[in-house]
Amino acid sequence: MASKAMTVNEALDRALPLGHPERLFESMRYSLFAGGKRVRPMLALAACELVGGDEAAALPVACAVEMVHTMSLIHDDLPCMDDDHLRRGRPTNHVAFGVSTALLAGDALLARAFEHVARECTEHGVPADRALRAVAELASAVGTDGLVAGQVVDLASEGADVDLATLEYIHVHKTARLLEAAAVCGGIVSGGADEEIEGIRRYARYVGLLFQVVDDVLDVTRTSEQLGKTAGKDIATDKATYPKLMGMDGARAYAAELVASAEAELDRFDGTRTEPLRHLAHFIAYRQH
Amino acid sequence: MASKAMTVNEALDRALPLGHPERLFESMRYSLFAGGKRVRPMLALAACELVGGDEAAALPVACAVEMVHTMSLIHDDLPCMDDDHLRRGRPTNHVAFGVSTALLAGDALLARAFEHVARECTEHGVPADRALRAVAELASAVGTDGLVAGQVVDLASEGADVDLATLEYIHVHKTARLLEAAAVCGGIVSGGADEEIEGIRRYARYVGLLFQVVDDVLDVTRTSEQLGKTAGKDIATDKATYPKLMGMDGARAYAAELVASAEAELDRFDGTRTEPLRHLAHFIAYRQH
Repeated sequence: MASKAMTVNEALDRALPLGHPERLFESMRYSLFAGGKRVRPMLALAACELVGGDEAAALPVACAVEMVHTMSLIHDDLPCMDDDHLRRGRPTNHVAFGVSTALLAGDALLARAFEHVARECTEHGVPADRALRAVAELASAVGTDGLVAGQVVDLASEGADVDLATLEYIHVHKTARLLEAAAVCGGIVSGGADEEIEGIRRYARYVGLLFQVVDDVLDVTRTSEQLGKTAGKDIATDKATYPKLMGMDGARAYAAELVASAEAELDRFDGTRTEPLRHLAHFIAYRQH
Repeated sequence: MASKAMTVNEALDRALPLGHPERLFESMRYSLFAGGKRVRPMLALAACELVGGDEAAALPVACAVEMVHTMSLIHDDLPCMDDDHLRRGRPTNHVAFGVSTALLAGDALLARAFEHVARECTEHGVPADRALRAVAELASAVGTDGLVAGQVVDLASEGADVDLATLEYIHVHKTARLLEAAAVCGGIVSGGADEEIEGIRRYARYVGLLFQVVDDVLDVTRTSEQLGKTAGKDIATDKATYPKLMGMDGARAYAAELVASAEAELDRFDGTRTEPLRHLAHFIAYRQH
C-alpha cells in the first residue's frame, strides 16, 4: 500500500506542477500534499486491479478524486463553514493563505479534476465513452447528490437534534459518495463490465459508511495530536455522531458489520484480484487516525 | 436572439429542476434564473450554427457554460472576494441565502456543469470524444488558466497601480476565456473541423476582450439602475479599467477595432451561417447594460 501511495503522490505531483499565479498554485499544492492517506486514489487503483485493468488507465481518475476531496476539505474548513484551523497537523488552507485564495484554490482544484480526467484518459488510451462516464460519476459525487448536499444538511443540523436517518444522509453524501465514486471510476476506466461496476459500487457503499463510523469513533478516543486535527470537536459542538446515537459499543459493532458486508461483495470476483480492496476495507476499519 | 434565449432558459430549467436539499436548489436557481443575458450559451449555439451542427447537440454545453458563469458570479460576489450586494438588480446570492449556502451553491453549479455535459451529450448522440474535449475546454476556462487565475490576480491588484498588461491578463482570464470556451465547445460538440474550431477561438478571443472593454465603459456612463448592479464602482475603488488607462475615446476606438477583428475571422466561413456570430459581436459592442 505504501508503494501505491507513492505512485499516487508522484502522479499528483506531475498533475499539478507549480505555475502562475504562483500563490494560487502554492495554496492548491499546500493542501494536496498535506500528507493525506490517499484512501480514495487507492480505492480507484484497487478497483482497477479487481477488474484486471492497467494501473496507468486508472491513475487519472485516482488523482482527480483526490483533487476533489482536497477541494472539499479546503471549503469545509472555511470560516463560513466549519471554521477549522487545524488539518492534518498544519494550519488549514485559509489560515495559511487567506480566505479568498483558499476558496479559489478549491474552485481551481475542482475544475482541474475534470480537466485531468478528460485530458489524461485520452492520453493513456482510455476509450472516450469510459472517461465520460467517469466524469459524470465523479461530478455527481460532488454536487446536489453528493458532497455539497451533505454539507448543506450538516450545516443546517448544527445544534439541532439529529436522528440516525439524517446522520446517515449527511455521511452518505459528505463521505461515502466520493469513496464510492473513486472505486466506481477506477472500475469504469479499466473496462469493468456493468455487473462488476455494480458490485464495486455496493462494496464501496459499505466502505464509505464504515469510513465515517470509524472517524466518529476516533474523534472520541484519540487526541488532537494523534489525529492531526482538533479532536473531541464532535462532543464539544454536541454534534450527532454514531457513538452518540448508538453508543460506543454499538458503533464498533456496526463497523464490524460493514466490513463483513463489504468483503461479502468481493466474493463474486476472482479471488486473487480482490486482495487490495479487502486490504483497504481492513485498513479503513482498523486505522488509528 | 430572443427566441434563442428562451430555448436556453427552457433547457436550463430542465437541467436544474428543484430537488432536495430544497434551500440549496433554490439558491442555485436564484442566481441561474436572475435574468442573465445568456451571452455565453448563445455563443455556443451560434458556433454550432456556424459549422452546420444540430442545435440539440450544442444545448448541453450552452447550459453548462451558463452554470459555470453563474458559479463565478456567486463566488466573486462573496464577502471575502468583491463583497457585492447587488447583482442584476437583486440582492446577491449570499445576501439572500447566507454565505455558506452561496459558496456551496457555486460548488454544486460547477460540478453540475460537467455532469450535464457528460450525461446530456451522451443522451443527444454527441460522440463521446467530442464531449470529452468539451469537458477539457470548459474546465480549463475555470481553473488555473481561466476564471480563478483572473480573480486571484484581480484581488492581488486591488489598490495597486495596474498596467495595461496586467489589466489584460485579468480580463482575458476572468471574462474572455469563458466566452471563448463557450464558442469553442459549441463548435466541438457540433463536429466542427479543427481549422474551424481555431477560427471560432480567434473570433471569440476578440469578442471576449470586447465584452470587458464595453463593460468598463458602461460602468462609467450608466447608472446603477440602468446596469442592475452598482455603477461607478470601478472609479470609487480606483480600479484599473480600459477608460482609465486609455481614456474614454481610446477605449471606444479599441472596442471598434475588436469588433472588426472578430468579424474578419468569420469571413472564411460560409456567409449565411456567420450571421448569428456577427450579430452577437454587435450585440456585445452596442449593448446598454
